[in-house]
Amino acid sequence: MVAARAKIRLFVEQPLGQGQEIALSQAQTHYLANVMRQREGAEIALFNSRDGEWLARLTRVGRRDALAECVVQSAPQRMPPDLWLLFGPIKKTRTDFIVEKAAELGAARILLVQTDYTNAERIRQDRLQAHATEAAEQCGGTYVPEVAALAPLAKVLDQWPEERALIWGDETLAEGAPSAVPPLPPAPAAILIGPEGGFSPAERARLTALTMIYPVALGPRILRADTAAVAALTLWQAAQGDWR
Amino acid sequence: MVAARAKIRLFVEQPLGQGQEIALSQAQTHYLANVMRQREGAEIALFNSRDGEWLARLTRVGRRDALAECVVQSAPQRMPPDLWLLFGPIKKTRTDFIVEKAAELGAARILLVQTDYTNAERIRQDRLQAHATEAAEQCGGTYVPEVAALAPLAKVLDQWPEERALIWGDETLAEGAPSAVPPLPPAPAAILIGPEGGFSPAERARLTALTMIYPVALGPRILRADTAAVAALTLWQAAQGDWR
Repeated sequence: MVAARAKIRLFVEQPLGQGQEIALSQAQTHYLANVMRQREGAEIALFNSRDGEWLARLTRVGRRDALAECVVQSAPQRMPPDLWLLFGPIKKTRTDFIVEKAAELGAARILLVQTDYTNAERIRQDRLQAHATEAAEQCGGTYVPEVAALAPLAKVLDQWPEERALIWGDETLAEGAPSAVPPLPPAPAAILIGPEGGFSPAERARLTALTMIYPVALGPRILRADTAAVAALTLWQAAQGDWR
Repeated sequence: MVAARAKIRLFVEQPLGQGQEIALSQAQTHYLANVMRQREGAEIALFNSRDGEWLARLTRVGRRDALAECVVQSAPQRMPPDLWLLFGPIKKTRTDFIVEKAAELGAARILLVQTDYTNAERIRQDRLQAHATEAAEQCGGTYVPEVAALAPLAKVLDQWPEERALIWGDETLAEGAPSAVPPLPPAPAAILIGPEGGFSPAERARLTALTMIYPVALGPRILRADTAAVAALTLWQAAQGDWR
């Protein structure tokens, strides 16, 4: 799909504002100079999850560092709705994919949960965070969701905020007579997608006992975890999020 | 997510019915014997897009061929709603992904279209068809969508069936004020997702002139083509398809 406005969009940590000079990282400098062949004077877009999107002009493109000066705000800050995505890490490519899609689809926070049936995959949190950042840069958003460190599901549920609805993609509901997707609760909300193998009986009991739990079936076929994550995020955004 | 019923599900071309003996392909034999280590007497599930799912018993597992005998129908035939997915091929991994997801999400037919801005990727139709088959085997469905050969969009539109609604993921609608997803039309319907770079002005004019065209925005961010395909399939299935 077409990229809106500036072709090159970069996420930075620093505050953005009129005349602000921003030092770009070594990786960003490499991308600008060697991949995109940008020179001094070129215009790029910057955002930092707080100050909207800024049109910035490159004032220095060195071998290892580059500087950009903010010219004018080109889009207001748009925060995603207060929706979290929780999922058990699966194979590397599909985990990457879920993180990318969650950022594109406007999740505010991404939490990887260790469940009883999660295969002990190694999680590179920094790499997943980089995927979320790149997806936000690509999709024209002004916000990068945080990718939280892998935590046991039981611990996450122990500390579950009472007011946050938990939408549970319950794969056992797909068997037998298919049921319609029920009305989804408004923000603050979270979506929980199980790993391959589903949830253990203990986990199912624990989830069922939560006050704010919303089990949903996603159609009559069994969806892979990555498909289920994208489908649930889509349905929530269309029903209660910023696609309305 | 959990696989329902039999763990091993295979798509075959032959008719299925009580006592029917089915010759499995060399690839299926390799998968059964060497990957899944199944022996004579083991139970598998077979489906052929017509006769539902059958529990079958392996009666011969040779080095290059295997035989299975149908025992009893284990699930009725379930046809997907009459929904097509049309998309311009993108990078290999993402094209594979779209085909897999379309099969999982219950598209009846997958059409690859060559648009003005489609990069001239080589399409291996047989490989994509195999992806669709594998996804159907995994998701517990009894139907494999056909992956049609790459065809120019203009030609597809020339022959467009008058009664089939065309839902057009129009990325330009994401810019500016975000608009809600409008009510989606019932079957027969199709979803059209553009390639990176969107549609050309000529294509846009052609699409806009169609009687049964339904342009939809998928939220305020610009979605990649693969995300847009999954999101649009999800919204249609929940609104008009078999997720109701």
